[in-house]
Amino acid sequence: MKKYMPSMPLILVGVIVVLAATLVGVLIFIRNQPPQQRAFEPLVEIKAMEPDSSLWGENFPNQWSTHQKTGTNNVDTTYGGSSAFSWLERDPRQVILFAGYSFSVEYNDDRGHMNALEDVRNTERLNLNPDDPARTPGTCYSCKSSNNPALWDEMGMAEFDKMSFMEIGARIEEPIGCANCHEAGTMRLIVTNPALDEALKAQGRDWTTFTRQEMRTVVCANCHVEYYFKGDGKYLTFPWAKGTNIDQIIAYYDEYDFKDWEYPEAGTPMLKAQHPDYELFTADSTHFKAGVSCSDCHMPYVSEGAAKFSSHDIHSPLLNPEQACGQCHTDSEYAVRRVNLIQEQVATTKQNTEDALIDAINAIKAAAADPNADAELLDQARSLHRKAQFMWDFVSAENSTGFHNPEYALKILAESTNLARQAQMLAAQSVNDASLLKMGTYYQTSEAPTTP
Amino acid sequence: MKKYMPSMPLILVGVIVVLAATLVGVLIFIRNQPPQQRAFEPLVEIKAMEPDSSLWGENFPNQWSTHQKTGTNNVDTTYGGSSAFSWLERDPRQVILFAGYSFSVEYNDDRGHMNALEDVRNTERLNLNPDDPARTPGTCYSCKSSNNPALWDEMGMAEFDKMSFMEIGARIEEPIGCANCHEAGTMRLIVTNPALDEALKAQGRDWTTFTRQEMRTVVCANCHVEYYFKGDGKYLTFPWAKGTNIDQIIAYYDEYDFKDWEYPEAGTPMLKAQHPDYELFTADSTHFKAGVSCSDCHMPYVSEGAAKFSSHDIHSPLLNPEQACGQCHTDSEYAVRRVNLIQEQVATTKQNTEDALIDAINAIKAAAADPNADAELLDQARSLHRKAQFMWDFVSAENSTGFHNPEYALKILAESTNLARQAQMLAAQSVNDASLLKMGTYYQTSEAPTTP
Repeated sequence: MKKYMPSMPLILVGVIVVLAATLVGVLIFIRNQPPQQRAFEPLVEIKAMEPDSSLWGENFPNQWSTHQKTGTNNVDTTYGGSSAFSWLERDPRQVILFAGYSFSVEYNDDRGHMNALEDVRNTERLNLNPDDPARTPGTCYSCKSSNNPALWDEMGMAEFDKMSFMEIGARIEEPIGCANCHEAGTMRLIVTNPALDEALKAQGRDWTTFTRQEMRTVVCANCHVEYYFKGDGKYLTFPWAKGTNIDQIIAYYDEYDFKDWEYPEAGTPMLKAQHPDYELFTADSTHFKAGVSCSDCHMPYVSEGAAKFSSHDIHSPLLNPEQACGQCHTDSEYAVRRVNLIQEQVATTKQNTEDALIDAINAIKAAAADPNADAELLDQARSLHRKAQFMWDFVSAENSTGFHNPEYALKILAESTNLARQAQMLAAQSVNDASLLKMGTYYQTSEAPTTP
Repeated sequence: MKKYMPSMPLILVGVIVVLAATLVGVLIFIRNQPPQQRAFEPLVEIKAMEPDSSLWGENFPNQWSTHQKTGTNNVDTTYGGSSAFSWLERDPRQVILFAGYSFSVEYNDDRGHMNALEDVRNTERLNLNPDDPARTPGTCYSCKSSNNPALWDEMGMAEFDKMSFMEIGARIEEPIGCANCHEAGTMRLIVTNPALDEALKAQGRDWTTFTRQEMRTVVCANCHVEYYFKGDGKYLTFPWAKGTNIDQIIAYYDEYDFKDWEYPEAGTPMLKAQHPDYELFTADSTHFKAGVSCSDCHMPYVSEGAAKFSSHDIHSPLLNPEQACGQCHTDSEYAVRRVNLIQEQVATTKQNTEDALIDAINAIKAAAADPNADAELLDQARSLHRKAQFMWDFVSAENSTGFHNPEYALKILAESTNLARQAQMLAAQSVNDASLLKMGTYYQTSEAPTTP
């Protein structure tokens, strides 16, 4: 052994020299590379606003195959999910709350993105006038198909919305897909819904300047928002001109004197909330303020083999908490317990609000039937009923049972209950009849609710 | 150089042998040390339950000097603080809500621990019967002095509580101090208040088996809890036998038919909430479930020179968020913004609840003045008033403006408002008079509130 030892230090010096030279070489090589133009070389060139997601899928097989799971992977959670269960069966109070409106006929929970087109075509809500199918506007397709961006581009949204559901439906074949959120070629996230583009502009906001992380929330607002159909042209409009918090939205509707329907026998000009997920989440929720986007929880990064990509199987994070919550929360079981508790608190409070609303409705109906009712007090009662029910619906129709913004949701429900009780009291005052103050009328009546 | 090289490998081997031998020696030395008995060698021996904190302070100068700061360091936050501001001036609704009870005469926010004794002796609440000072029970000293543990030990709590405030007061000299939470000698955290010991035992819980982290919350429950004075002996009692959530506490009081006072002209048997910080925080709040103790935020570890110790200058974490929140939250500014928003949401909701309660009170008073009122309906109204006001007070008297458990606080306020409105409606029904349904009566009346 000993005769080899003298050479060992020399070997070590040699190794160091070789390593240093290699490092310098690598650095020079990296520096001389051309700047990266594109993260991938596409197998298929995709034309602008291509409706066929399967073509995009050839370039992005992982995103496409996870997106396809939204067609079949429709699992429920405790308070929501995507199995298309009936809200009217699960909570029959809603049959009463939406009496006189199509949502009292059918109100099913939404299924995954790939089912959007099939579900909108099958809903009973659109078949209420079989003798006059033209009454249903084309606007109902706004958030159901990847054909929309190209059609909006071709004819303009005003024209799209003016057409009947049947007429424009003949040109729609694809469910929600890649073109609803991505720009072909660059794949960057974009606003495709002209209503969102206009609503942001009305607020002086330019989405083309947003960061990618901001866009990972804003693209969801292409659809997951409060909206209404404006005027005779049924022009898709987000009521955001005054801002996106609930008071600003109600002020907008009041100024415009808009109503979705009139509550039968009560005469209240009602508003139906859609799915204001974006508005509730961005109203200074803790996750939003921490810089978390919709996609961080609903489209977490997952691994398959050597690939890491954002899952496009969009659903409740409660179904994959290790991936969804675990990207930030080391203890995802703890996070799930928190969500469960918060949703239970919101669901219980929401139910109490519904009971208060039904009491108010019954009182207003009784007062409205009395020709001697004080018109001013009765109108005040209706005004509070309108506001209270929209506030409740803002939380109820939203897709998180309050979790997107727990404190704000509970504050809204507290105010809604207060207003509903006040509406009931004003109705009783309008006819000077304390017998209209019955409480828990939902539990006391076996009357069939009024439906159109 | 070359002639030294042959010896280098030998030197390396030598170094390794020396290092290994040293390591073995150190391990043997450590193993043969006697087990550690005490983390420190005290300068002064402290006798059991020593009331004089300055003696303990000789052994623990950092803890003692920070504890002393609670005497002078009385700064306010947006919604609370420790400057002894008047709640009755800040929110005159409370003069009405506590009408007929001592809290409508004086209701000042609590100052720091070192002021507890001075403040209890100076409060107007105890001087309402100057001709009969014996009416004030000794129980009022329960949480004000480090003399208590020794006195409780000497005479038993029943005897302590039976004495008058003046009588037992002659033996009390020290404000809150070391002996209220620590065992002399070992310095371990202990339950010193017999009422807490009994309340835990009634739940089948043995605090001597709790971990140190659990005790860093439980010692605060020596005082920061809901309690009442039971029976003629004014025996200090925590209403926890059914559990510590608000429904369980109300059920306890209802079963015991306890009332703190009767609301004048309304006849409602009222409950005054104390400061249920422990109950609200431990009702599955997010921080509690994450394993955070009261001390983690209110007594954060701080450094002075080479010493690291838990600050005993206990106050709102909003006054030192870098230390208080920063131990877990990397962005303490973000955490403060969250607290501010949540407290604003709770404070606004709480105010709406107060307005609903005042409307209910005015309606019940009017109904109670009517000899023809339906007694059963009126009693139902009183029952809901009692429950609604205690729920409101549970959040209002608690020391965090809801932050200790935001969702639970907002859920409680939503229910309280609903019950208050129902109480008003029942009162109107009891006299079949819809004119009792006036809303916002707080803003409409210039009447001086009733005080005893």
